[in-house]
Amino acid sequence: MKRNVLVIGAGGVAHVVAHKCAQNNKLLGDINIASRTVGKCEAIIDSIKEKGNLQSPGVLRAHQLDAMDIEATKALIRATKSQIVINVGSPFLNMSVLEACIGTGAAYLDTAIHEDPSKVCETPPWYANYEWKRSQACKEAGVTAVLGVGFDPGVVNAYARFAYDNYFDQVDSIDIIDINAGSHGRYFATNFDPEINFREFTSTVWSWENSQWKANKMFEHGKEWDMPVTGKSMAYLTGHDELHSLSRFLDVPNIRFWMGFGEHYINVFNVLKNLGLLSEKPVLTARGQEIVPLEVVKAVLPDPASLAAGYTGKTCIGDLLKGTKDGQPKEVMIYNTCDHEECYAEVGSQAISYTAGVPAVAAAILIAKGTWDSKCMVNVEEQDPAPFIALMNNMGLVTRIKDEHGDRLLEPMREMASSEPEKRFATA
Amino acid sequence: MKRNVLVIGAGGVAHVVAHKCAQNNKLLGDINIASRTVGKCEAIIDSIKEKGNLQSPGVLRAHQLDAMDIEATKALIRATKSQIVINVGSPFLNMSVLEACIGTGAAYLDTAIHEDPSKVCETPPWYANYEWKRSQACKEAGVTAVLGVGFDPGVVNAYARFAYDNYFDQVDSIDIIDINAGSHGRYFATNFDPEINFREFTSTVWSWENSQWKANKMFEHGKEWDMPVTGKSMAYLTGHDELHSLSRFLDVPNIRFWMGFGEHYINVFNVLKNLGLLSEKPVLTARGQEIVPLEVVKAVLPDPASLAAGYTGKTCIGDLLKGTKDGQPKEVMIYNTCDHEECYAEVGSQAISYTAGVPAVAAAILIAKGTWDSKCMVNVEEQDPAPFIALMNNMGLVTRIKDEHGDRLLEPMREMASSEPEKRFATA
Repeated sequence: MKRNVLVIGAGGVAHVVAHKCAQNNKLLGDINIASRTVGKCEAIIDSIKEKGNLQSPGVLRAHQLDAMDIEATKALIRATKSQIVINVGSPFLNMSVLEACIGTGAAYLDTAIHEDPSKVCETPPWYANYEWKRSQACKEAGVTAVLGVGFDPGVVNAYARFAYDNYFDQVDSIDIIDINAGSHGRYFATNFDPEINFREFTSTVWSWENSQWKANKMFEHGKEWDMPVTGKSMAYLTGHDELHSLSRFLDVPNIRFWMGFGEHYINVFNVLKNLGLLSEKPVLTARGQEIVPLEVVKAVLPDPASLAAGYTGKTCIGDLLKGTKDGQPKEVMIYNTCDHEECYAEVGSQAISYTAGVPAVAAAILIAKGTWDSKCMVNVEEQDPAPFIALMNNMGLVTRIKDEHGDRLLEPMREMASSEPEKRFATA
Repeated sequence: MKRNVLVIGAGGVAHVVAHKCAQNNKLLGDINIASRTVGKCEAIIDSIKEKGNLQSPGVLRAHQLDAMDIEATKALIRATKSQIVINVGSPFLNMSVLEACIGTGAAYLDTAIHEDPSKVCETPPWYANYEWKRSQACKEAGVTAVLGVGFDPGVVNAYARFAYDNYFDQVDSIDIIDINAGSHGRYFATNFDPEINFREFTSTVWSWENSQWKANKMFEHGKEWDMPVTGKSMAYLTGHDELHSLSRFLDVPNIRFWMGFGEHYINVFNVLKNLGLLSEKPVLTARGQEIVPLEVVKAVLPDPASLAAGYTGKTCIGDLLKGTKDGQPKEVMIYNTCDHEECYAEVGSQAISYTAGVPAVAAAILIAKGTWDSKCMVNVEEQDPAPFIALMNNMGLVTRIKDEHGDRLLEPMREMASSEPEKRFATA
């Protein structure tokens, strides 16, 4: 039974993670939050108290930490007796925090792939460039590391695995579709750190086509998707973390990620990109200041956390799997819809942060209980998705399924009982 | 007879001014070019030699100068024995350079109104906030100062005066229309210093309507104009220097300035403005750097001087005057068209810099000859426009007129001979 959580980061996702940990502190124990700016951690703690989200009296503490400093992170893990570290800071920190976990035996969780600030376009699969290189070290140290356990990557990987195991003889394609049909009412804003957000769209768009990597350009391929609840939306082929593990762990020849964008977003993005303002390479101003244009764009854009208050509408993120079952073509959509205003009422966040943060805490609970405490490094789809999906149904992220039998709540145990025994998940 | 010229500035307009001075150095004497960055002055001198634009053997010299330093500027004026200073540096320098001229007796010329870096929107008429406050000092010192003698302001003021004096009993409106129908082939660029360029369009758009100032917003009023040579173009009511003197010196109730913009320019401008990237107020980046967003935008945009090589197409800038003559409605268009490629062939510049630089040198020639050596501060429309227009016809900027008699070369003396004697310019 693992206890005591160290949350690293104090942005929008960390805010949700801390609230959700607090709501489950009987099981999870002490909740510690660490960031470069301790004041941001303290603000999160204040908001937990304000919302009354601490399940039972217990430790809730803020810490100043530069998580690039492995020794300092190890010291904080030890000092707080944390057995679970949820890394929801910048993706530039992943490898340092992972190393601190390997050094202390704490379980490691994150929600995005490691990034190097100086590299934007890397060779797929991206996990092989960083995290997977420490897989053997995790095994030797008996350290549980669950990579990419936000919503996408994370929940969508579990959806893919669940559908792959339970509904198909053969899967031909997985299309992961991420639509935010919400409105923040600002001229323009990104829903999470602009620096990370734009980096996603300025690099090569890798997709998995006919069992090999295909390089595309951003906004090169667009398609209108008719999603449950949010309706018709344009979404564009986008490079995304989950393709880099799903392509390895599931035998599916076509795996694609589609992100919804409105015309206005695309226009602003294109202007900034074409002008060179999304560049991470420094430029020299006429006054002789050296500055990274992307950091200036980040500075003028609204703080993503500030969007939460007025955010309305819903997100819909899901996996559409196509394949065959008993010689017949089959199509399954597994999805979640999440309401911005409801998220704000519960934890003071918008739905983008909420959908990314809740799964990490669900995974922490499964590790604490031993269900997912694998003592090695895994991507989400390597674990049994059933308890994860079932747990989230009671944590604010409800999963639904749409197939030839209709559109219904996905209750994993019931679905599995009705599918063929030999196709069930091996460890279920 | 005033001789020896000091050119202050080493940007696109200064480049043209230096070339044109060199082409007239028998009259103008020594040509000195001073800028903060002496290398830019040297590059201009190299290009003059390369193009063979030095009329006769003579002094052509580069100097390092911070023109905000009045004493240093006075010292350089004295050291170079310059009797004419052409200030084509940043408009932030005007008042300092003017002061140096008042202190040394040199004639002063500029092509744009003084600006304070910390103020964008000022009370009209703008000249009253800065230059005109030194009018009495010029008179006492016997210093000739010709304000705003580029194309617009400058030539368009002379056009307005010439038409006002020669073709009308009463003028109801002057519309100054500035169309650049050229193409630089880049995604986006400004034709002169982006910092100054954008400041023009982020401030309140003042127009002179029914003999009073009216505040408008940028891109609030657009109109399609059918211009000679360049044809139909959309142009938008824009705030511009010349309105701030024409409204004082000519008895015309409506004076407006229209700048041509394509949809693409407007889109990029609006994105940058709405995001706050055109702000001259510093922002703080996440890394703690304090930076002015507009300076970063300037740093990523092409250097206006670099556009010249591939620039194609033409500009058309002119004044459309409407009023009455002998009880009949009358309409006159006086205009210039200028070809980007021809400018590049002659002096290595594009037409925007060319049209701004040539008039300043024409004015310097008129001062050197005594024609415009008023020994006081004047705006262009206070001087006799005839010799100015006639001189430019032989310097690469040809003026044409279009009225009920057709579209023809404007030869001021011939036109004046055919208009009523009592309406002729007083000093002509």
